[in-house]
Amino acid sequence: MEIKVGMLGLGTVGTGVYQLFQKNQGLYQKELGCQINITKIAVAHPEKERKVQVPAGVLIEDATEILEDPEIQVVVELIGGGKSFEYDLNALKAKKHLITADKFLIATGGDELFRVAAENNVNLMFGASVGGGLPVIRWLKDGLRADKIKRLMAIANGTTNFMLAAIAVLSYDTALSLAISKGYAEPDPSFDVEGLDTAYKLAILARLAFRRRVSFKDVYPVEGITALEPADFTYANRWGYVIKLIAWAEDRNGKLDLRVHPMFIPEEHPLAQIVGVNNGFYVEGEAIGEQTLGPGLGAGPEPTASTVIADLLQVCQDIKNSQVSSYPINALEKAETYPVTMIVNRYYLRLALANEAGALAEVTNILKDFGISISAFDQPETTNPEAEVAFITWPTEELNIYKASARFQENPKVKKAYPPIRILSEEEKGGDDGE
Amino acid sequence: MEIKVGMLGLGTVGTGVYQLFQKNQGLYQKELGCQINITKIAVAHPEKERKVQVPAGVLIEDATEILEDPEIQVVVELIGGGKSFEYDLNALKAKKHLITADKFLIATGGDELFRVAAENNVNLMFGASVGGGLPVIRWLKDGLRADKIKRLMAIANGTTNFMLAAIAVLSYDTALSLAISKGYAEPDPSFDVEGLDTAYKLAILARLAFRRRVSFKDVYPVEGITALEPADFTYANRWGYVIKLIAWAEDRNGKLDLRVHPMFIPEEHPLAQIVGVNNGFYVEGEAIGEQTLGPGLGAGPEPTASTVIADLLQVCQDIKNSQVSSYPINALEKAETYPVTMIVNRYYLRLALANEAGALAEVTNILKDFGISISAFDQPETTNPEAEVAFITWPTEELNIYKASARFQENPKVKKAYPPIRILSEEEKGGDDGE
Repeated sequence: MEIKVGMLGLGTVGTGVYQLFQKNQGLYQKELGCQINITKIAVAHPEKERKVQVPAGVLIEDATEILEDPEIQVVVELIGGGKSFEYDLNALKAKKHLITADKFLIATGGDELFRVAAENNVNLMFGASVGGGLPVIRWLKDGLRADKIKRLMAIANGTTNFMLAAIAVLSYDTALSLAISKGYAEPDPSFDVEGLDTAYKLAILARLAFRRRVSFKDVYPVEGITALEPADFTYANRWGYVIKLIAWAEDRNGKLDLRVHPMFIPEEHPLAQIVGVNNGFYVEGEAIGEQTLGPGLGAGPEPTASTVIADLLQVCQDIKNSQVSSYPINALEKAETYPVTMIVNRYYLRLALANEAGALAEVTNILKDFGISISAFDQPETTNPEAEVAFITWPTEELNIYKASARFQENPKVKKAYPPIRILSEEEKGGDDGE
Repeated sequence: MEIKVGMLGLGTVGTGVYQLFQKNQGLYQKELGCQINITKIAVAHPEKERKVQVPAGVLIEDATEILEDPEIQVVVELIGGGKSFEYDLNALKAKKHLITADKFLIATGGDELFRVAAENNVNLMFGASVGGGLPVIRWLKDGLRADKIKRLMAIANGTTNFMLAAIAVLSYDTALSLAISKGYAEPDPSFDVEGLDTAYKLAILARLAFRRRVSFKDVYPVEGITALEPADFTYANRWGYVIKLIAWAEDRNGKLDLRVHPMFIPEEHPLAQIVGVNNGFYVEGEAIGEQTLGPGLGAGPEPTASTVIADLLQVCQDIKNSQVSSYPINALEKAETYPVTMIVNRYYLRLALANEAGALAEVTNILKDFGISISAFDQPETTNPEAEVAFITWPTEELNIYKASARFQENPKVKKAYPPIRILSEEEKGGDDGE
């Protein structure tokens, strides 16, 4: 038996997939008992020189040739960047199984894609859309499917995770230059550093963890790492925390609390162990308790190729058995979201104050006005004209923090109010109702 | 559509499965679009009082009733302890899909069970045989299937992992009493503390990671934790290591190096972060690089139930789609094993020496005779009649360590030679050919 596959795109990931496929083809064939052949690869410039040897006639320019080829049963779309929504939809309508690594498509157009896949009785696989070489999609949709997940936390962007360690000892700008020089960050890094990449991935993870239709727009707020300074890491460290860019998804009495932001994580938490460009995923389930997948490489052509081809092998095994094993995620209810103003956290606050008598009294009175209690306080000695204070609050509703922040902004003795940072604290452990 | 399931055993795990199934039944039904009913549960004493409410008529005494019931399509066998091999074989021969959590059966009789399952075109699922609530079986067989695994390391026994932390500060006996009092260890703990439980699990993991027929007997040596003393942990800590009971599987030029023993693991290694009763699994793959699953609960009725039912849902989804999605692991080649004498490691050695001039010269001369070079050395000051020395060697073939150990045993100035402990060192990183 031979299964013919058409590929779209031969960029970084596409090349990685083609190379890994060629290398392990014998292994795959032996395991499945059938032959998989990539017979067509549509690219923008077929004549361009490539890092991989592709047999003559395989590289084509017109992607519709793949859709119109009745012998091709599987389409592996590796264009990325959300550009191929229409194409993917047409592939499914042409009853071809679809494998994509495109997080945008699933996070923004997932509802329609899953529906059309189900209508046409074909697989839609998206394992590599999150986590690179970490099979986090399978972990959630197959491995943990019998349990009810209460909370998911993820470090899903290796670029920012690498940068955080560098910001701690350098500065944001130096950290960014370092990440760019190592090839971890794009020259325009905004997609990563502003948390958007993480938010797209969170939408996909939350769909699987909570079995609801979740879209990128449901994730709020999305805060990045650009406002962080070395001082924040110093305070965090002093109080036993590390700072991570966290994707957070929690079921709060049926509503989903979905957000992306930097967070103080206790040093002993599994996600605090995720260092460098690695990704890591953590869940709390009713039956399984706490569980972590990672560290592991969340990007890069080789790890991503491993996950894309794992999807391909699953699809080919299904074709061989005349079946469709995609998870039934088309008929889910739309997620209702939980307002972030209502969540309860400890918060880390940092303020630059005028070096004047009464400055701290202004601050503490504002906190008092909103019922915010201080759990830890630090004011490093200084001879500067501005003093800096940092503190950790007791758990309080986020709305109180917004109100206090607004008052800080307008107070002449507060020279600067840095963005508050949420803290993962023991009170929140297993919290399924926000205290 | 209704799928009828027969269960064997309603002990700790069986009760956990039944409870979780009852709790989430509505969820499962909605997700699969079919009804799953546990219609018969065979137990030794149907009249015994149970922690769960089971409808009248479901509890039966004669397990063959399940095999002979043509309406039952799935058998969930939760007897454990390797006692139900014949029964499981008969279930497969009766063309019933089989789910088992029994590591013995798979580690010792897996070859026959997988063959018979394939012959009868039914699923044989064993997700909960290793890792409890951690879906390590799926991780290896589905998630990472496209990659070639070079090495697998596992902390697969929570009892011993808990005890190791206690031995470090107490003693072996006190640690064991503590583990028993917390319910983590059996009154007869030999199966756990001598490494056997870990070895059975390793045989299963290695089969999936390396796609070869691996049996419990292929794992050698199997060393437990009973010889460890607080001093070993003190030295380990001084040199930047923790001690873990490690299941090791490595492909060395086509031969499998399979063993279970305590090991010095660098403090920053992902497996060093697996604390308490947790399990953790670590692989190095050609494409994915390094990747870890865990920490997570590797035992206990609730976590294990989550994995058993994930298998059950997969099987029911297959039945609904008239298909069998079991991984093709019946037609594998038998594993050849790599002799442990040939592996190369750093080693930790601890000796009690007579407090006499020349004692250390004897030791260093023996090491010299076998070409063993010392990388770190420590002799705490003492006024005891016996001196203690501990050292770390440079990488050397294990055979040399055996030879030196034999010479230590017969040397009158060496009062005691403690068992050498293998060290995970950077030289070994990604080692696919044993140096």
